[in-house]
Amino acid sequence: MQTGCWRKICRNIDDESCALLTVYGSSGLRIDLIMTGKCHVIRKGQRSSCSRGKSACSGPVLVECNASENSRRLKYISNKIDDPNYVRIFDTTLRDGEQSPGASLTSKEKLDIARQRAKLGVDIIEAGYPRSSPDDLEAVKMIAKEVGNHVDDDGYVPVICGLSRCNKGDIDAAWEGVRYALSPRIHTFIATSEIHMRHRLRKTPEEVIQIASEMVAYARSLGCEDVEFSPEDAGRSDTEFLYRILTEVIKAGATTLNIPDTVGYTLPSEFGSLIAKIKATTPGAENVIISTHCQNDLGLATANTLAGAYNGGRQLEVTINGIGERAGNASFQEVVMAIRCRGNELFGGLYTGINSKHISLAS
Amino acid sequence: MQTGCWRKICRNIDDESCALLTVYGSSGLRIDLIMTGKCHVIRKGQRSSCSRGKSACSGPVLVECNASENSRRLKYISNKIDDPNYVRIFDTTLRDGEQSPGASLTSKEKLDIARQRAKLGVDIIEAGYPRSSPDDLEAVKMIAKEVGNHVDDDGYVPVICGLSRCNKGDIDAAWEGVRYALSPRIHTFIATSEIHMRHRLRKTPEEVIQIASEMVAYARSLGCEDVEFSPEDAGRSDTEFLYRILTEVIKAGATTLNIPDTVGYTLPSEFGSLIAKIKATTPGAENVIISTHCQNDLGLATANTLAGAYNGGRQLEVTINGIGERAGNASFQEVVMAIRCRGNELFGGLYTGINSKHISLAS
Repeated sequence: MQTGCWRKICRNIDDESCALLTVYGSSGLRIDLIMTGKCHVIRKGQRSSCSRGKSACSGPVLVECNASENSRRLKYISNKIDDPNYVRIFDTTLRDGEQSPGASLTSKEKLDIARQRAKLGVDIIEAGYPRSSPDDLEAVKMIAKEVGNHVDDDGYVPVICGLSRCNKGDIDAAWEGVRYALSPRIHTFIATSEIHMRHRLRKTPEEVIQIASEMVAYARSLGCEDVEFSPEDAGRSDTEFLYRILTEVIKAGATTLNIPDTVGYTLPSEFGSLIAKIKATTPGAENVIISTHCQNDLGLATANTLAGAYNGGRQLEVTINGIGERAGNASFQEVVMAIRCRGNELFGGLYTGINSKHISLAS
Repeated sequence: MQTGCWRKICRNIDDESCALLTVYGSSGLRIDLIMTGKCHVIRKGQRSSCSRGKSACSGPVLVECNASENSRRLKYISNKIDDPNYVRIFDTTLRDGEQSPGASLTSKEKLDIARQRAKLGVDIIEAGYPRSSPDDLEAVKMIAKEVGNHVDDDGYVPVICGLSRCNKGDIDAAWEGVRYALSPRIHTFIATSEIHMRHRLRKTPEEVIQIASEMVAYARSLGCEDVEFSPEDAGRSDTEFLYRILTEVIKAGATTLNIPDTVGYTLPSEFGSLIAKIKATTPGAENVIISTHCQNDLGLATANTLAGAYNGGRQLEVTINGIGERAGNASFQEVVMAIRCRGNELFGGLYTGINSKHISLAS
């Protein structure tokens, strides 16, 4: 995806396999971009004159490039994906995104956003954190009932997910929120870094493993067949301990293991290596989906997420425009368009089910 | 750097080697961050009550983490750095940043920004593109005269740089802009990707090499001892051709070779590898500085810049808040703080001369 001010745009040359995009910055400096691959404009900026008499515009232009048409939708099975190159997009705009500094959404706004996320074709919508307030529970329930029951012509319906800490009260609330969806999911988390376990949870590693396993089993016992587990602060956790707790939650019934870089502190090489090691080392990992969740504190959320996908992550947690706690999360647009533009060449043919034509309206 | 809403902040634990940061998102969900390394708050958010009765805040908090004190300033020599771990920060807020959609700055604003960039200690300020307009020339000249002549107690004075295409008119204007500075630099560029050379420049590769060499030599002939050359669209250029043109411009007198990912299309692995190959393969590269300039179209500018530094780039081109053409450039804050937070552990001890205490005021 290219954004910029435009003058002539997408004058096709070279047998429509590339396009010339001439843009003017506000200073009037002309820059030509030549995109490879088929291009088309998905949003045009507003034309205006700049102070130096050149035609310019104030709004961005989005241009799709190198569009891979490999975006078929696969039947949803909680713990497996029938095509090894298909990557699930987990949209947490309504949960992590709502935790952006200053952000707050009404239930109606949440429902509208969920509808729009479904229009984009996200595989999973994390609709909220039901235990956090009665309002949030109601919003999640409403989304589960409506968006989680709207089946498209091609059979697509998003999974509706609710967040919960590892305790029965949270899990009960999450289940109460999501259970009305055709494909409900409970997402439960507990911290696994030594510093968090000791100073915040005040639990031993063995206690943390026990709580996590029991709570994943509890979620399954409610009738929820799709349970995601996150070892919070995985990026700073002892990897041997991670393998152990992940092994146990798989045994307890977890179907997706999400690996969060909670403090946004890892580099792509580290995060990619962590995902690869978890896949290679954790007994049972071949029977579940490995997921990424990268905060953006050092500006590396998108790069870390892509490194995770490259190393075997098949669910990527993202938010619209990269909003989220503190410095935000991985950007839905950046992650989806990087895979779309470079998936064939550099990620071994990875693709998502996202309908990127709707991205500009969603931003 | 961590940003977020705060309640208790930096309660020191563990012998002051880490700090607990408790933050509330707008949903009232509590998140504890535990930073390693010495921490201190450099900006606090505004306190307010959130709708769920929890103490929250609307503004961001910036916390410095793991502060390396390794930030000594080295004497500036155009084509070499006496410490292999020192990374120069080239700030192009006033040039690439001003090309952001909708941005436009008066000369007075430009001077204020240049003063502020100098306060942060950036090594090089790209003050503008003097040929683009008489106003821009005047702004660059004013910055060169004032900011480029203000020497700190420790001997620091920023290099003042002006952009120019590879033609005499542009280079004359750039030199007229920067020559009043104590350390003036001309930055000249020409496109080197096949598609740009053929369709935009309508020149053969041999002609492009000749123009580049002649114009670098011309810039030197004016009395400018510090000349930066950029092969525009390097990220999509033939690497063998890149080695050839870079070899010739070094012979002609270039002191810094800047490698731009002009269309923001590369992944960190590709861009890092490109920098490593240029350093290893180009005759004379050991006698000049290799630089990065990464656009953010796929959200990877910061990651690509860091990959460039890891692979031997010792000048990083950035802008405040990552502003710039189209989707922007690499963010000054992200790049500087990633090196500051992780430089010792992951980049073999890389460091910059930036005084990060002033970052929050600059944003």
